[in-house]
Amino acid sequence: MILEHVPIGHLGIAELGRALRSGCLSATSLAHHVIRQHRQHGELLGAYKFFDERACLAQAAVADSAFKAGMDLGPLQGIPISVKDMYGVSGWPTFAGAKRALPNQWRSEGPLVQGLRRQLAVLVGKTHTVEFALGGLGLNNHHGTPRNPWDTTGHRVPGGSSSGAGVSLLEGSAWVALGTDTAGSVRVPAAYTGTVGFRPSPGTWSTRGIVPLSSTCDTPGVLVRTAADLALVYRTLSCELSPTQLPTPKPLAGYRLGVDRTFFFARCAPGIAEAVENVLTQLASAGADIVEVRLTEADEAYEIFHDGGIAGPELLASFGTTLPDRHDELDESVRLRLSQASSMTATTYIRSIRKLDRLAQQAEHRLSHVDAMLTPSTLNLPPLLEDLNDPQTYIRANIDAMGNTGVFSLFGFCALSMPVALSHEGLPIGLQLAAPRGAEAMLVQIACAIEDMIGNARQLLGTPPLLQQQLEPRLSSGATFPNGVT
Amino acid sequence: MILEHVPIGHLGIAELGRALRSGCLSATSLAHHVIRQHRQHGELLGAYKFFDERACLAQAAVADSAFKAGMDLGPLQGIPISVKDMYGVSGWPTFAGAKRALPNQWRSEGPLVQGLRRQLAVLVGKTHTVEFALGGLGLNNHHGTPRNPWDTTGHRVPGGSSSGAGVSLLEGSAWVALGTDTAGSVRVPAAYTGTVGFRPSPGTWSTRGIVPLSSTCDTPGVLVRTAADLALVYRTLSCELSPTQLPTPKPLAGYRLGVDRTFFFARCAPGIAEAVENVLTQLASAGADIVEVRLTEADEAYEIFHDGGIAGPELLASFGTTLPDRHDELDESVRLRLSQASSMTATTYIRSIRKLDRLAQQAEHRLSHVDAMLTPSTLNLPPLLEDLNDPQTYIRANIDAMGNTGVFSLFGFCALSMPVALSHEGLPIGLQLAAPRGAEAMLVQIACAIEDMIGNARQLLGTPPLLQQQLEPRLSSGATFPNGVT
Repeated sequence: MILEHVPIGHLGIAELGRALRSGCLSATSLAHHVIRQHRQHGELLGAYKFFDERACLAQAAVADSAFKAGMDLGPLQGIPISVKDMYGVSGWPTFAGAKRALPNQWRSEGPLVQGLRRQLAVLVGKTHTVEFALGGLGLNNHHGTPRNPWDTTGHRVPGGSSSGAGVSLLEGSAWVALGTDTAGSVRVPAAYTGTVGFRPSPGTWSTRGIVPLSSTCDTPGVLVRTAADLALVYRTLSCELSPTQLPTPKPLAGYRLGVDRTFFFARCAPGIAEAVENVLTQLASAGADIVEVRLTEADEAYEIFHDGGIAGPELLASFGTTLPDRHDELDESVRLRLSQASSMTATTYIRSIRKLDRLAQQAEHRLSHVDAMLTPSTLNLPPLLEDLNDPQTYIRANIDAMGNTGVFSLFGFCALSMPVALSHEGLPIGLQLAAPRGAEAMLVQIACAIEDMIGNARQLLGTPPLLQQQLEPRLSSGATFPNGVT
Repeated sequence: MILEHVPIGHLGIAELGRALRSGCLSATSLAHHVIRQHRQHGELLGAYKFFDERACLAQAAVADSAFKAGMDLGPLQGIPISVKDMYGVSGWPTFAGAKRALPNQWRSEGPLVQGLRRQLAVLVGKTHTVEFALGGLGLNNHHGTPRNPWDTTGHRVPGGSSSGAGVSLLEGSAWVALGTDTAGSVRVPAAYTGTVGFRPSPGTWSTRGIVPLSSTCDTPGVLVRTAADLALVYRTLSCELSPTQLPTPKPLAGYRLGVDRTFFFARCAPGIAEAVENVLTQLASAGADIVEVRLTEADEAYEIFHDGGIAGPELLASFGTTLPDRHDELDESVRLRLSQASSMTATTYIRSIRKLDRLAQQAEHRLSHVDAMLTPSTLNLPPLLEDLNDPQTYIRANIDAMGNTGVFSLFGFCALSMPVALSHEGLPIGLQLAAPRGAEAMLVQIACAIEDMIGNARQLLGTPPLLQQQLEPRLSSGATFPNGVT
């Protein structure tokens, strides 16, 4: 069969699904594969708060018995999925990146996790997060900062707050990584790790069962390896969570794509804008209509973001009410940001909320004649962890990580990041697609069309150098599977 | 005819409408009547920021010419209406109680005023308001505090913030007084002046064209002389603003009415709870089902109200953005409240908003088995103006004025106040009816049923002593009408 001699890790979710359904791969052997991947790389990469081998195998056995019984409960049946430790999952504690586990109510599964359960997906473990998701770089001094595998010498940060999510995909221990995105917490780690990260507009997918950061901007999200995987996962989760009619895909020549070089490109670190420009040139060659749009609302939203945004006081308001008040135990960087937030006045907050409402309406109006905005995902490349000890450097890097993503969050838009190139230092560069609420499906389709044109992450970026030593088992070499290929 | 020998001021709006349509009264002669009333009492009572005789006669002439042409544009055609100086009205400045007029944008008419215009109602002038509507007693040091005509010796306050609204009705210069209600600004002046004051739930009637106080709790409202007038005005404005199916009226025996004596009755000044209990006894005798409901959510909402509520920072957030920043010119009592509000943190505000959302849901659930809650409208009787010079006395009186009304505002409920008795000092006592969003029409019907049983304001309270000298013209005595009875 055509899947023979292809490393499992190179397969997309649709191909895995075909292998599982054709009988040439069992969910259990797939579970053993991800366990092996994790055993091999887990210590070095540190993507997981914990990886549950036993639960992994137990769920895989259920998926297999369902397959055997002729039950197909959805495209994610048997697919290994990592869960950001902001989500409640039965049987697992929820730390949300904090020093101690949260009260048991935060173990309750919300609609997103329940939807995956109903499909008999295989939840492999909980990935690290910045404490209470308040930070864009991925730092966590309580439990460690996952290592970005695109640098063999230094410890570069993985992006955050879904810091373990992208790394879990690269490790090969998950095909889908659940994340959450407030100001960029799915898109930044996707950009930093060379994966695809998608956030719907707030309210589209339920946040129930997820530890809250910002009641205004929080939304669940997913990281996957390719836009093709995203299309499958998006369709699947949308069916579970908010059934929508998917628009008809168009060729690239059918899309009008907006670009604002003044705001989103000018402040990028060397190499980033150039890589995105290169994609834009290819898109134009393919017939896409690239339109210059001066999105001045982004400048104004960025000011609000730069001045502290709205997430800080919204998180603080949860302490002592829905969340336990553990100020004394907070990570230094989180405490720093919250102490700034604690001095924000109600008047400033209300003004920000009102202004953002107005800006979002204006921005939506301004974008009514384009299908999506295209921007670099981040202004910087993943920094070295050691460079972030200085608070000012940390704050600057954090803002540069989330500046381009944060403004769309503040508008309540949907957005995604997809990899488009490696920098000359060998670090991934992400392209962000963003559009007003309701354009989720179209964004995913545009990402697929772009991926079809420029190639997916593996084709574009190759394997992260830190993982290149690894010899992946292939489907044909059944001997390497402890439980065999069924 | 039956209207002969009845003073015009004793007629309800429906009766006035019949007189206007039967030809025994013209809108112009009615306008002359209200002008006379205002000339006679205006200086003493001080209800109006300005009363526009010329505009009054011009609008009346239009109404008359429409009547003559056989055009009937609605039940309020030709009816004199006073407008709280928070509403924009073309051709008139808007002060909103401030020292100087607001920029011209605040003269624009919103849907409520436009709806009255379309019916050819006669807008007679702008009534006083507490500066930016931030206060429940009716004080205004810039333009004067209207005098409550139920005391001949002392200057008692009229209630606020719609401070001139109730007084304009008593003066006889308007049959409808437009007010606004955030924490009780329509219900408190209604209770203090012995009139009927109604507020729909926020969002039911548009606040466009009204100077904002609280983006969360603001709602337009009306004061009228009787529940019967309210029924007519409610139907008319609802048709203009948010057409709804009116429920079938029931006899009193068909209603279940909730009472929470613990929260709403216990702290009342002597005489108030007793007067309301007397009505409850009559209601029970008439077959209404009086049910004890312990609305503990009111206690919690009251704490938020007592600690500063949410209106202060919401108003502050409008200064310098939609409203001009004139801190230096603010009335002392308003400045005092805003300086407290300016120190509220974003976190406190967000917690309050979240808690109120939860309390409102719980309260609505708890009230699901009753048609309305019945409470005393205010905890106090209208205080003497001279007693309010001491800031602590002012703050206490302000809270006692709005405690019972404020909690329903914070729930986002609809409510009304209707007069039920005079205290032994001869001051009006109000009964409040409140219910969750959507129960507006039923509240009005219950008020009508209660009024049918106990009598209307004129029957219950008589004429305010300060106005008793007045000899009102009667429809039969055409000679007293400058423009004659047509």
